[in-house]
Amino acid sequence: MYKMVEKNNFYDVIVVGGGPAGVISAVTLKKLSPEKKVLLIKSVGDGVIPCGIPYMFKTLKKPEDNAMGNAPLDKNNVELKVDEVTEINKKEKRVFTEGREVFSYKKLVLAVGSNPIVPPIPGVDKKGVYCVKKQLSYLKKLSSDIKKSKDVVIIGGGFIGVEFADELSKIKGLKVSLVELLPEVLSNSFDREFSVQASECLKESGVNVYTGVKAREIKGEKKVSSVLLSDGVEIKADLVILGIGSSANVSLAESCGLKTNDFGICVDKFLRTSDKDIFAVGDCCEKKSFFSKKNCGVMLASTATTEARIAARRLSNYRVLKNDGTIACYSTKINSLSLGSSGLTEKTAVEEGFKIIKGVAECPDKHPGKLPGCSMMKVKLVFSERDKKLIGGQVSGGDSVGEMINVVSLLIQEGFSLDEIDSLQIATHPKLTPAPTIYPIISAAQSALESLRK
Amino acid sequence: MYKMVEKNNFYDVIVVGGGPAGVISAVTLKKLSPEKKVLLIKSVGDGVIPCGIPYMFKTLKKPEDNAMGNAPLDKNNVELKVDEVTEINKKEKRVFTEGREVFSYKKLVLAVGSNPIVPPIPGVDKKGVYCVKKQLSYLKKLSSDIKKSKDVVIIGGGFIGVEFADELSKIKGLKVSLVELLPEVLSNSFDREFSVQASECLKESGVNVYTGVKAREIKGEKKVSSVLLSDGVEIKADLVILGIGSSANVSLAESCGLKTNDFGICVDKFLRTSDKDIFAVGDCCEKKSFFSKKNCGVMLASTATTEARIAARRLSNYRVLKNDGTIACYSTKINSLSLGSSGLTEKTAVEEGFKIIKGVAECPDKHPGKLPGCSMMKVKLVFSERDKKLIGGQVSGGDSVGEMINVVSLLIQEGFSLDEIDSLQIATHPKLTPAPTIYPIISAAQSALESLRK
Repeated sequence: MYKMVEKNNFYDVIVVGGGPAGVISAVTLKKLSPEKKVLLIKSVGDGVIPCGIPYMFKTLKKPEDNAMGNAPLDKNNVELKVDEVTEINKKEKRVFTEGREVFSYKKLVLAVGSNPIVPPIPGVDKKGVYCVKKQLSYLKKLSSDIKKSKDVVIIGGGFIGVEFADELSKIKGLKVSLVELLPEVLSNSFDREFSVQASECLKESGVNVYTGVKAREIKGEKKVSSVLLSDGVEIKADLVILGIGSSANVSLAESCGLKTNDFGICVDKFLRTSDKDIFAVGDCCEKKSFFSKKNCGVMLASTATTEARIAARRLSNYRVLKNDGTIACYSTKINSLSLGSSGLTEKTAVEEGFKIIKGVAECPDKHPGKLPGCSMMKVKLVFSERDKKLIGGQVSGGDSVGEMINVVSLLIQEGFSLDEIDSLQIATHPKLTPAPTIYPIISAAQSALESLRK
Repeated sequence: MYKMVEKNNFYDVIVVGGGPAGVISAVTLKKLSPEKKVLLIKSVGDGVIPCGIPYMFKTLKKPEDNAMGNAPLDKNNVELKVDEVTEINKKEKRVFTEGREVFSYKKLVLAVGSNPIVPPIPGVDKKGVYCVKKQLSYLKKLSSDIKKSKDVVIIGGGFIGVEFADELSKIKGLKVSLVELLPEVLSNSFDREFSVQASECLKESGVNVYTGVKAREIKGEKKVSSVLLSDGVEIKADLVILGIGSSANVSLAESCGLKTNDFGICVDKFLRTSDKDIFAVGDCCEKKSFFSKKNCGVMLASTATTEARIAARRLSNYRVLKNDGTIACYSTKINSLSLGSSGLTEKTAVEEGFKIIKGVAECPDKHPGKLPGCSMMKVKLVFSERDKKLIGGQVSGGDSVGEMINVVSLLIQEGFSLDEIDSLQIATHPKLTPAPTIYPIISAAQSALESLRK
């Protein structure tokens, strides 16, 4: 029997999900409209900071250092319930939980995230095979198993796989192998020249990188003992980590009749689902490309939080913003090499049907280049030939890549043209940035302009 | 007698000046219009990278590591002449040099820079008093004198003064004092809370910081022995460095009848002087504020290079850009603290007559905050109350400040409003940036929005 809906179980807004999308929806809404009564229901009590997961095994002193606390919710007077929502009654505007409670909402926000994809590789159910769940207790178990392991095989060379490989390579005595189906690692977000830099860096850290091959079978008795690749190579393994990607969690939405597609819960520009009183944000909702407006498979905490802020504005009385689709911007660090990508790569732009103009620039990331700690950075910009607008950029170099890619992201969002980049006003400093005379975003645009003349 | 003007002394464009403004004018023009014959005349054969000067005394192994070579000119087929231009004949379109040569131009670009201001302090002509000239031989002499010194007094607490103080504090056995007339250091570019961070950092490095006092007299026989302050304090000194600022070099322009004002050579939006065949770029030309369009005293290599690129476009057949005035964006690093400022501070905005809304956010510059090397960063944003547009931002923290301030710069140039910042798409990574949930530019805008409601 469900508990009776008591008067204090009525909420203006109920948010389901405690990841970045859920938390930022609830917190932003309370900041904009503190008078609203907001409840956040999350199923996992011991959540973690998603992007920090790869660093729980060596860089951080202990896995708990990556726990996601409830301080932002408390501070902003968001009520919290740890429980699993099992059913939504759209007509009555109520949600039902596993703990047999009922809550009424005026507006509902689904931020129920994604589930790690478990590929249909024979043997994937053996002991010692892990996927990357956003749950502290699960990851602590993984951490303790890593400590007992000698040979780890990571399947998947996207961001998660590469970051796990980099982190685990720092554990003394652990042999780390990375298996990627495509010809290069990180190849959904970087062109070949940047992917090669990433691979080289992993190899220098002692990671065995296998690209262009498929994991055909996970072998072993009850427990994994090796991974057999499609080219016949067999890699010894006492632990396997699957970093294949994630799929939107649509089960709750589907069961209550919300429209979904292959990419997630269908939403409009304000993140409203097919029921206008129900919003969906973050990994669980479909993503559209900023460029083609077609669906795409991007799942990023930064995208999730942008969607959450846009939804919160629609739920409050503040100026409403629209979701123009994701440009997809990423950064990562492998050993001492940082990489950033925003928008389309040369490869994905061509696949999307763009005729492109490209420009590349390389320079020291400090000036003069003889300053201590200086490293080389590389910027590649991709413009659409038709309107000369910037549609993508990739950066590699030292730590400053992390924020420089955000300058590129903003140029893309603002529709800067090849010409306009020349009038950019930037702050430079010897110890912090490249020289103003050769600031690589500007130089790359100039190199694209020169290529037009040839 | 001047040499006859020979046929090969005719140039499409002559650039006078070999600093960043001159070099980037010439190089950009050759990139855009390689067919043009371009000559660069510079008076100083041994130029240096201006922003790198403070780091020639300890951080760099030797002063020569900050030399500005001629490689960019050579690579782009810019002809080079080391000589001093002494006269311009606008009517005949010729320049005359100290070496008694004559060159004819179709278009002339003046990039003759600025001269360090020598304040009228009694004793300023004594031996051991230096200003900051952009000349390798002069700076080598300063470097060798610093090595022999025990007590250095730096007069002026702007960027140059603060950076010299930070650098020299790293020299063992050298006592460094900094004297600033205003109540805080860096106070033209930062509000008090950031200036105080800078002062604290200098003091931690052992610098004696004197603010709100004037250097009344430089004492000593032939050579400096102390500096007497307006409050009666006398600081022992065997070396004094003047970092008061610079004034535009307008003598050549004035002598040929070009219009000038207190801020430099007068120019239009395309950097053309009162003679439409003569351009002026960089420190020698007047600067206008992006906000008020009134004259302002900003002198920055990054501003100079932006002007140079705009002038080069006007001189070529490429799409012309306009100079909308400088937003004034700076960054600096004092010991391990980095600081960036772009646009107006709260103080300067109010002085300019703006009613403002402000927002502040602080957060760790990595996520989770327990990652090694994490430091706190602070962002302050200043919006115009009238149209809610971003007119200024200040950032302090670790090295990532250097590029983050450029995100702020771009938001200002693009006229982002308080509301629009919520839809920003940014790339984040645990080791490189703050968390997407609390990205401080977005949080500061939200805090400004909250302040509106109160």
